[in-house]
Amino acid sequence: MNEFDLIERYFAPLSMDGLKDDGAVLAVPEGFELAVSSDVLNEGVHFPFGEAPHYIAHKALRVNLSDLASMGAKPLCYQLGLALSSVCDESWLAAFSKALSEDQALFDVKLLGGDTTSTKSGISISITAMGLVPKGEAVKRGGAKDGDVLVLSGSVGNALIGLDILRDDVVSADEAYLLECYRKPTPRVALAETLRANVHAAADISDGLIADAGHIAKASGLACRIDLDAVEFSDAAQAQIDVGRYSALDLMAGGDDYELAMAIAPEKLDDFMSDAALHGIHPQVIGCFEKGSGITVVDGQGQAIAIDKAGWQHF
Amino acid sequence: MNEFDLIERYFAPLSMDGLKDDGAVLAVPEGFELAVSSDVLNEGVHFPFGEAPHYIAHKALRVNLSDLASMGAKPLCYQLGLALSSVCDESWLAAFSKALSEDQALFDVKLLGGDTTSTKSGISISITAMGLVPKGEAVKRGGAKDGDVLVLSGSVGNALIGLDILRDDVVSADEAYLLECYRKPTPRVALAETLRANVHAAADISDGLIADAGHIAKASGLACRIDLDAVEFSDAAQAQIDVGRYSALDLMAGGDDYELAMAIAPEKLDDFMSDAALHGIHPQVIGCFEKGSGITVVDGQGQAIAIDKAGWQHF
Repeated sequence: MNEFDLIERYFAPLSMDGLKDDGAVLAVPEGFELAVSSDVLNEGVHFPFGEAPHYIAHKALRVNLSDLASMGAKPLCYQLGLALSSVCDESWLAAFSKALSEDQALFDVKLLGGDTTSTKSGISISITAMGLVPKGEAVKRGGAKDGDVLVLSGSVGNALIGLDILRDDVVSADEAYLLECYRKPTPRVALAETLRANVHAAADISDGLIADAGHIAKASGLACRIDLDAVEFSDAAQAQIDVGRYSALDLMAGGDDYELAMAIAPEKLDDFMSDAALHGIHPQVIGCFEKGSGITVVDGQGQAIAIDKAGWQHF
Repeated sequence: MNEFDLIERYFAPLSMDGLKDDGAVLAVPEGFELAVSSDVLNEGVHFPFGEAPHYIAHKALRVNLSDLASMGAKPLCYQLGLALSSVCDESWLAAFSKALSEDQALFDVKLLGGDTTSTKSGISISITAMGLVPKGEAVKRGGAKDGDVLVLSGSVGNALIGLDILRDDVVSADEAYLLECYRKPTPRVALAETLRANVHAAADISDGLIADAGHIAKASGLACRIDLDAVEFSDAAQAQIDVGRYSALDLMAGGDDYELAMAIAPEKLDDFMSDAALHGIHPQVIGCFEKGSGITVVDGQGQAIAIDKAGWQHF
């Protein structure tokens, strides 16, 4: 099957216009701006060698939608750049494109265009996602104000444990759940509207809660304090803490959760929490932003705890 | 140097807004649409292992700008997705980003955002380029009309010979020129305005003249005829034909030239040629579109010549 047949069979059905041109043309409605984000996922780095194609597809699209969510944007479409290795046969492509199709329906987003290439080395998936946001309303990292509370859209650490399960480094009675957290994160696109209405600053947690909350603080010219006792973990993650396999700080430094860290003015908190609850999401208030710089984690006595690793970094 | 320092040092200076957020926000002026195109370049496939970083950068950006040019769009910005291997040290990144910076100035385009990742295998560069086009005026592949002439923005085959020189498969007195054609193609962005005014359909020649002219014909529901005697090659390429190293058809099937193939109504041809000449570009009229299907190359006697390879395909 040649490149054009392959695109025709597996990717044209996902697209807005059939992928007939060198590029696509996108109309942005009056009063809106385009939020644009890219994430590249490489075999052996962002997903294990031999990972099932549907998990690769889910993760590649969802991590991009998560970036749009953090900006308060509604997903519109995406460009799909594929570097496919010799393992990517027709059954691989069928499973990969089917998973994209499922997520397109779930998150109301379409394929706009892209490029399908072969590689002599590992698989690399590059997605550029585009979303709509009313003009001037995009949520940024640098908008936190002194006195804002730090809010987390869900629990962190599950993805780190899921990855360790994949690596056979840990066992858990909740293996299926934790693996799914790592492989198929839920981008918080449902929160986009209330983010625009109620949130000063946001980032999605790809590098780890401590690192990403730190990014908000730094971009906003503020300090961030996380109250360790306020951070609630999933039952599955708490069980791992209880047996001593991970510390709470380990889980707060683990990446890949794709929850949102947000800075919210105290007077907006109730509205935000009510909106989130309508989508079945129950955020946690875990700290605050204040004058100063840097990120501190404090214990129940208000004592700062040493942080030895802040999050995942390439290089 | 960690991921954030690296972005701060080498890529933030190329960007519109400093790359501070999970994504970027792009305003599309009223009356315009966004043309979007992606190309992925993989080490060992689209450029040789060990290729100099500045050539990788030039090629990655320029092939994307070429797609925008074929749509009649003015380049605006691009997303840069990097999968970097262990060879990509600071000197590599300095040369890579410097080449991008030079091309940004040359083609009036800025970095919007992207993702910088590490890979355990070969380098992969994924760019999504965005350009502006007045609403409804984007040039497409499928717009050719019966009776249009087939016009080529420059000479083809140089890039194929350049690649063969890189592979030590061929020698040429014009080595420097031919290598440059392969490594640093000139996207025809200068033609965007006259394309919108005078061209029915266009495609950039990435897969080879015969293949890409065939794409226009197929998308337009027409046949395309190329007059072999009308196709002019560069002096460097003609010298290779003269010594019997390549046939004219070989060069018409070689990819990577990034000239434009265009369908133009005969009555618009003079205007188009005058506009092109203002930019120092001297297109060739090499054939026509007519009722029917498929692509034919005819000799000086009007006899069809058998085509055994139409162009480059992945897979």
